[in-house]
Amino acid sequence: MTGEPQACSIARSLEIIGDRWTILILRDAFRGIRRFDELRRDLDIARPVLADRLRRLVDHGVLQKVQYQQHPPRSEYRLTPMGVELSPALVALMRWGDKYLSDGAPPTVLVHETCGNALEQGFWCPHCRQTFSPAEIASRPGPGAAVLTDELPTRGPRAHIH
Amino acid sequence: MTGEPQACSIARSLEIIGDRWTILILRDAFRGIRRFDELRRDLDIARPVLADRLRRLVDHGVLQKVQYQQHPPRSEYRLTPMGVELSPALVALMRWGDKYLSDGAPPTVLVHETCGNALEQGFWCPHCRQTFSPAEIASRPGPGAAVLTDELPTRGPRAHIH
Repeated sequence: MTGEPQACSIARSLEIIGDRWTILILRDAFRGIRRFDELRRDLDIARPVLADRLRRLVDHGVLQKVQYQQHPPRSEYRLTPMGVELSPALVALMRWGDKYLSDGAPPTVLVHETCGNALEQGFWCPHCRQTFSPAEIASRPGPGAAVLTDELPTRGPRAHIH
Repeated sequence: MTGEPQACSIARSLEIIGDRWTILILRDAFRGIRRFDELRRDLDIARPVLADRLRRLVDHGVLQKVQYQQHPPRSEYRLTPMGVELSPALVALMRWGDKYLSDGAPPTVLVHETCGNALEQGFWCPHCRQTFSPAEIASRPGPGAAVLTDELPTRGPRAHIH
């Protein structure tokens, strides 16, 4: 990883969404706030900044600009399938804020739509067929791993998240 | 949410970790890179910036500065339980990058330590006892919800992530 921050999927993701405004725009898109002026109002964000972030998200394939009305022309920004798959990251951020930054009173509860019960988010091993805690996560080099060098750290009982 | 970005757990979380350097520092802490000079070298980050981000993370209770050697005094930054619980967010960012930004060759594979098999991350309903997709997430106001106003958006088939 040393000197090659791009050889890490977290770093690569942050190059696209590692910006506070960008994540709040995506949160709003999940909430159904998808038009330029609505986003501007909800986020109290400067027009050029919002335009820049939306353009980047469209360029990267996370949002799609869709014309929903022809006369006069009006567009909105919808999550692509790639964008929808950011939901686990947003849900995780929300649950962490719920637990540690909300004084025990979360502003919003995410539920399973079918039954209305609060959802859980977890890690699952399809081999052992069981859920498990973060402490049981380990890692190994994947097919896109950089060549190992002596610079790579090996301290600690195990490496967790690369 | 309008005018009150703090009434949202995602916004609150981003006030603490909504910074690219901060997330990369946390990634390194999970990997076992926990000392100032190691972090500086791994991230190629300026000393004052690293010092500022570490101080903020300690102030917020995400990292703890621990002296691991007395002569000469040497310290490292360890994840607190609050910090460890950021792992679902980091894992989600990583998996998204693996899927969309790695040309099919993820640099690292996260596994269940016990068996070495690649982990999955998902949503689980404890009532229905089943996993489900992001499309089946809905939301309702929680105990810390702000007073509803006409300004709150209601468009779309349902609100997803607030």
